Amino acid sequence: MTVSYALSVSSARYSAFLRLLRKWKGSVVKAVWAELLVWICLYAMISTIIFWVIPIEALNKEATRLDNLLGILDIKFMLGFFVTIVVDRWKTILQNISFIETVALSVSTIIRGTDDNARLSRRSIIRYLVLSQAMVYRDISMRVRRRFPTMKSLMEAGFIFENELHELEQTETGYNKYWVPINWCNSIVWRMQDQKYIEAPVSTNNVLNNIRDFRTQLENLCKFDWVPIPIAYPQIVFLAVRIHFFFTLFTRQYIPTETEEFLWYRCIPLIPATSFFLYLGWMKVAEALLNPFGEDDDDFEGNWVIDKNIKTGMQIVDQSHAECPILNIDQFSD
Amino acid sequence: MTVSYALSVSSARYSAFLRLLRKWKGSVVKAVWAELLVWICLYAMISTIIFWVIPIEALNKEATRLDNLLGILDIKFMLGFFVTIVVDRWKTILQNISFIETVALSVSTIIRGTDDNARLSRRSIIRYLVLSQAMVYRDISMRVRRRFPTMKSLMEAGFIFENELHELEQTETGYNKYWVPINWCNSIVWRMQDQKYIEAPVSTNNVLNNIRDFRTQLENLCKFDWVPIPIAYPQIVFLAVRIHFFFTLFTRQYIPTETEEFLWYRCIPLIPATSFFLYLGWMKVAEALLNPFGEDDDDFEGNWVIDKNIKTGMQIVDQSHAECPILNIDQFSD
Amino acid sequence: MTVSYALSVSSARYSAFLRLLRKWKGSVVKAVWAELLVWICLYAMISTIIFWVIPIEALNKEATRLDNLLGILDIKFMLGFFVTIVVDRWKTILQNISFIETVALSVSTIIRGTDDNARLSRRSIIRYLVLSQAMVYRDISMRVRRRFPTMKSLMEAGFIFENELHELEQTETGYNKYWVPINWCNSIVWRMQDQKYIEAPVSTNNVLNNIRDFRTQLENLCKFDWVPIPIAYPQIVFLAVRIHFFFTLFTRQYIPTETEEFLWYRCIPLIPATSFFLYLGWMKVAEALLNPFGEDDDDFEGNWVIDKNIKTGMQIVDQSHAECPILNIDQFSD
Amino acid sequence: MTVSYALSVSSARYSAFLRLLRKWKGSVVKAVWAELLVWICLYAMISTIIFWVIPIEALNKEATRLDNLLGILDIKFMLGFFVTIVVDRWKTILQNISFIETVALSVSTIIRGTDDNARLSRRSIIRYLVLSQAMVYRDISMRVRRRFPTMKSLMEAGFIFENELHELEQTETGYNKYWVPINWCNSIVWRMQDQKYIEAPVSTNNVLNNIRDFRTQLENLCKFDWVPIPIAYPQIVFLAVRIHFFFTLFTRQYIPTETEEFLWYRCIPLIPATSFFLYLGWMKVAEALLNPFGEDDDDFEGNWVIDKNIKTGMQIVDQSHAECPILNIDQFSD
Amino acid sequence: MTVSYALSVSSARYSAFLRLLRKWKGSVVKAVWAELLVWICLYAMISTIIFWVIPIEALNKEATRLDNLLGILDIKFMLGFFVTIVVDRWKTILQNISFIETVALSVSTIIRGTDDNARLSRRSIIRYLVLSQAMVYRDISMRVRRRFPTMKSLMEAGFIFENELHELEQTETGYNKYWVPINWCNSIVWRMQDQKYIEAPVSTNNVLNNIRDFRTQLENLCKFDWVPIPIAYPQIVFLAVRIHFFFTLFTRQYIPTETEEFLWYRCIPLIPATSFFLYLGWMKVAEALLNPFGEDDDDFEGNWVIDKNIKTGMQIVDQSHAECPILNIDQFSD
Repeated sequence: MTVSYALSVSSARYSAFLRLLRKWKGSVVKAVWAELLVWICLYAMISTIIFWVIPIEALNKEATRLDNLLGILDIKFMLGFFVTIVVDRWKTILQNISFIETVALSVSTIIRGTDDNARLSRRSIIRYLVLSQAMVYRDISMRVRRRFPTMKSLMEAGFIFENELHELEQTETGYNKYWVPINWCNSIVWRMQDQKYIEAPVSTNNVLNNIRDFRTQLENLCKFDWVPIPIAYPQIVFLAVRIHFFFTLFTRQYIPTETEEFLWYRCIPLIPATSFFLYLGWMKVAEALLNPFGEDDDDFEGNWVIDKNIKTGMQIVDQSHAECPILNIDQFSD
Repeated sequence: MTVSYALSVSSARYSAFLRLLRKWKGSVVKAVWAELLVWICLYAMISTIIFWVIPIEALNKEATRLDNLLGILDIKFMLGFFVTIVVDRWKTILQNISFIETVALSVSTIIRGTDDNARLSRRSIIRYLVLSQAMVYRDISMRVRRRFPTMKSLMEAGFIFENELHELEQTETGYNKYWVPINWCNSIVWRMQDQKYIEAPVSTNNVLNNIRDFRTQLENLCKFDWVPIPIAYPQIVFLAVRIHFFFTLFTRQYIPTETEEFLWYRCIPLIPATSFFLYLGWMKVAEALLNPFGEDDDDFEGNWVIDKNIKTGMQIVDQSHAECPILNIDQFSD
Repeated sequence: MTVSYALSVSSARYSAFLRLLRKWKGSVVKAVWAELLVWICLYAMISTIIFWVIPIEALNKEATRLDNLLGILDIKFMLGFFVTIVVDRWKTILQNISFIETVALSVSTIIRGTDDNARLSRRSIIRYLVLSQAMVYRDISMRVRRRFPTMKSLMEAGFIFENELHELEQTETGYNKYWVPINWCNSIVWRMQDQKYIEAPVSTNNVLNNIRDFRTQLENLCKFDWVPIPIAYPQIVFLAVRIHFFFTLFTRQYIPTETEEFLWYRCIPLIPATSFFLYLGWMKVAEALLNPFGEDDDDFEGNWVIDKNIKTGMQIVDQSHAECPILNIDQFSD
Repeated sequence: MTVSYALSVSSARYSAFLRLLRKWKGSVVKAVWAELLVWICLYAMISTIIFWVIPIEALNKEATRLDNLLGILDIKFMLGFFVTIVVDRWKTILQNISFIETVALSVSTIIRGTDDNARLSRRSIIRYLVLSQAMVYRDISMRVRRRFPTMKSLMEAGFIFENELHELEQTETGYNKYWVPINWCNSIVWRMQDQKYIEAPVSTNNVLNNIRDFRTQLENLCKFDWVPIPIAYPQIVFLAVRIHFFFTLFTRQYIPTETEEFLWYRCIPLIPATSFFLYLGWMKVAEALLNPFGEDDDDFEGNWVIDKNIKTGMQIVDQSHAECPILNIDQFSD
Repeated sequence: MTVSYALSVSSARYSAFLRLLRKWKGSVVKAVWAELLVWICLYAMISTIIFWVIPIEALNKEATRLDNLLGILDIKFMLGFFVTIVVDRWKTILQNISFIETVALSVSTIIRGTDDNARLSRRSIIRYLVLSQAMVYRDISMRVRRRFPTMKSLMEAGFIFENELHELEQTETGYNKYWVPINWCNSIVWRMQDQKYIEAPVSTNNVLNNIRDFRTQLENLCKFDWVPIPIAYPQIVFLAVRIHFFFTLFTRQYIPTETEEFLWYRCIPLIPATSFFLYLGWMKVAEALLNPFGEDDDDFEGNWVIDKNIKTGMQIVDQSHAECPILNIDQFSD
């Protein structure tokens, strides 16, 4: 489930910042604390080793040399450009999450009739659309897959009946079958036109186009799942960040020079740890967004979308079909 | 209400810059001054403590060391990339603020007739559209919520009648019900076609499509409210800026060396305070845009949109319906 | 009027660069020279004061210290990101400048008939469309406003007649009335269909959709005028640049050390002035684009668009209506 | 075939990072290792030469001087901006890979009839669409070209028959002929309407528009192939990276000063090699994406798309035509 | 003509890089070599003058001072952001280059009939569309202008006949007349419907819409030509790069100190020349893309587009009209 915080930032006052920080779910602290702890432990260990084992003189020079060399490993830009690309992709995926209202309202308005045939047809169109969505989401979202591990489980949840599942399995293509329920939808729409529940071909087109748009959004999600950002890009970025901070374990150690006294508080890696925290947090944003249908706190909740769609869709095409209150003369008249 | 300043910058002359600065509402100075004051006070306090308490020699070295380390906390890029993403999102939200004119003109042109039935139907379509918009805006905008804290308050404002509210509450889905008034609209459109107020199915389609586009914009706003930019991203950026300037409280202190005389004017943190001002101001831009329906000076004014839509929509579909002046032969003839 | 230079850069040769520089109108030199002069004068004044008043030793240290501190005021990124956002917005506004050809060709093709009624109706549709455009442009462009300071002036220019203006003023909404002439257009289109000048409802739809697209572009312009880039963003960027170069007035002074001889040519601030010129020029690009309907050399010329639209539109729907040359057998036959 | 890794990154935990690194196919290590090896060998060779041949004093100075100069060759930004542009282009190309489902579902729904004529017509439409796609992909993808080196090979694969190939070859334009099979499709659609397999012209339009959209996506792919990113841009970026690392071969050598002892472990170019690895890896991302229809691990697999389209398309328009299960009363009723 | 290199980079191997470099046409070397030579000559001249004329001591100090000051003239970001904007614009222009296939296929499918009247009408529609395109391209592309310096030359090439040219010249608007041939197209389409060559108004709409889309793309090209990127932006960027490298002529000179011996090989400006080459090359990318219809190697070839469109269009609407091979039972049946 995505983490909402719009109310916390309704103004740009200082308290907004604090309210934002207080959130734990999906927060950067939650994402980073474990690795930060590991890093600090490693830092402490190396610190101890260095202190007891190696002559100070030599150390000092090496650290400076390495730190200079490290300058070239500039991870800011890599991260900045990479996060921008990942956020862009994440936004496009968000836009392709399809809600049922548009197509349901179209079906309900254009396929008229309150007899059982019309009602069942409209309900089945909605069910098939959500079935297709569920089939797609099963393949791209871990959470939906866990809820519906097999097609059988979809049957138990009532999205598909045995005869339909049988027919679906009969369809042999060797490729995905997300289109099969959509095909059933189209057949129902056509039959409705034949049986004069739809007035004109131009109205049929309206329904068909809305069904097509719903399917296209699902197809886009499949495309995004099929072709992720080329693997080498996240690899290189995530590696760069980790290598950088691995080196800082050594280069940012406090090494007292011989001539000056030992200052215990310099052993506290305050600023190195802070920058580790900030950059790793930034990287985690990218890592969490890379697979928006994954299991992070902030990932899209496919199950919720499916449940909302079947419930809302049924309500629209059946109970609320052709419903209209008695019109009153509004007070805006003058 | 957004702050308009187009006239102030109609040319790129120097005076334009001054006119721009004079604006107070929504200005960066208004957003930053409080925190700037706090920062300066803290700076002064620390300055005093340092001066009386700690030996100069030690201080000097620490400050230099910290300042060097701080270099890695480069907040420029984080801010730059983050602001770009936030502005992009803000722009998309702006594009999804829906005005009623398009759909009202379509309704007025296509649903003909000046009898009470036609007029009431057209008026109700507009009312339902704005009702749906008000329901959505209540859930995403603090200001609209304050104006309409309950559905009852919408009834008092005349957007919904008691029987309609009753029917709305009867509709049980467990999810949002923004679609219910749209469903009523569609029903009215269909009835109008049945009663021959609309000439052809193709014209009905035109109205239905415009209603659908209006609803889609509302749905997009809901989507943007439902899935904000992942919380970790603003957290990390806002933290980075604040941590950076917390450290500068210490590293940018004036610490006289023993060998040179004390220069009182070096105690004035002119440039550190300026950079605090500029970066915090930049960050405030992001903070204000993060929730464009919030309560900042520059946020979108949902209430104004709703009032404009109901007023303009009613005017278009009722008083101005089918209105056309007597055509005159224009002077562009030759 | 925008400044065209496409021909000057038709190839990437060196001469192209020179031709580009020769342009004065809209050029960066024209935008920057005044402030550059002021800056140089200030620089000279401060230089003189410093030379005669303050002991060299002290100065030298301060300048170095300030220059180091100044490093953090990095204006490159602010400018870079800001210019990108401003250019993006400017491009979107450009795309929403509407030319009449599309809707005029549609009106001319679909509303048939050469009698006075048909001709007058087609002409009036064009006139009303351009009238709506002129009303919008009056409110967003300084130049169009100066040309048409009142609605009366629109009447004198022939865009609206007295009876129409009367009807327009009767329409009382409290909000903008850009939609009123569009409403008249729609009424005319519908009347044309009733009177059988339009063959089928599907053709009517075609005209209505083109009129809607024309109006939507006007609405988008209004939106962009209503919601500018939040004022804090330009404020912060323009302030940052100016503060930066105010400080350089002091930190980039030539301060001879005591041990070395005075070198007069070091007093010439060659590189500081050059960087002032370049960054201020970059900023001016942003400043000029911020209000594309303003009065800079490079701003869009609304008056020209209005004149072109009324002239071209009338030509298309009247004189050139249904015009088609006698077809000849072309030489591409074989 | 593209490399999928969505499951590996379903959460932002540390293990996700390791799973990501374990991938070999399409990985950055696979892309970089050879050049990395060459670089290390060269480094070692130069190291040896330097050690035995040149006096240390001189070397030391040169290396420092060169390293300072090298600072200006900043490849980070070039790479960052270039990769962003390349990724953007790659994304657009991905969006123009066309799957057959939309058009096949439209054909199947609108062209009714189960007699041989209807079935053959529907099948041929699909075949011609995929044929056109195969002809385009042959010209832009190395892999598809290898599979179908000649038009004959397309005939052998069954995408085109001898008489069709003959007709195709008769069509003489001197330009590409991707449109010829689409023209055949349109002719079939029209014949179907004449023979009353399609109910209304508005339905014909629906099919024609879907065919047009399919063709437009192919045309876009051709456009992208015809006009690549101007060659000078990749040249300059790839050169910059290679020149940079060529120079580091010399400037990053360990040159012991005379006064200090020789430290063997300083000869290991740990950080120079790491940065070589990271930047070259970043560049490889750009290089691999530059031609998304090439032969890299991560490139789009045109052959798979063609096979999927012909198989799925045939299934939809023939076996699954008008198929609809017996509707059951679903459990969502209440 | 654009320079194609997709095959050279079909994989990300090292050889791909070499193949890419071998290209001369449109290459960065071709664009830069002349200015590079000039720069090197100037460098050598200044080097000589410095060596013989000025005392070494003074020089050394000045060079260091200038080099430090130069740091602020950071051209990387200016170039990076500017190139991104220019590439974005160039991509949009590419998308607006219109090919005739879509509209030709629509005309051929919907306007039926094989008699001379139908054939001539279809051919004329194509001719008028390409004529309009040629008129637009003449005004935005140097190469097309050279081919068709006058309207007469269009007549000689067969795109327009004398009577048509006469009619075109009669149309007096004072503005561009690109719409005139489109108006003729529309008239022909309408006449075809009157004469029953088109079956239904909905089909007429299909053709009209495709013609409109073709014209809109031309209008967009005109818009982009009318409103270039504000001239101040390229001016400032191109100036910045050139000023930067003008200064490096002085600051990057080898100036031997008195205490050390003269090293002749330090006079070779290896790295300064390399960076001149790389940055100038990067700038040339922007310069070449700034006017995509210019005369650079990589610019769009308008003449080729016009020739292809007239040839392909005629083929589609005439010779290939209603052509469809005898359908065979394909082997994908099972």
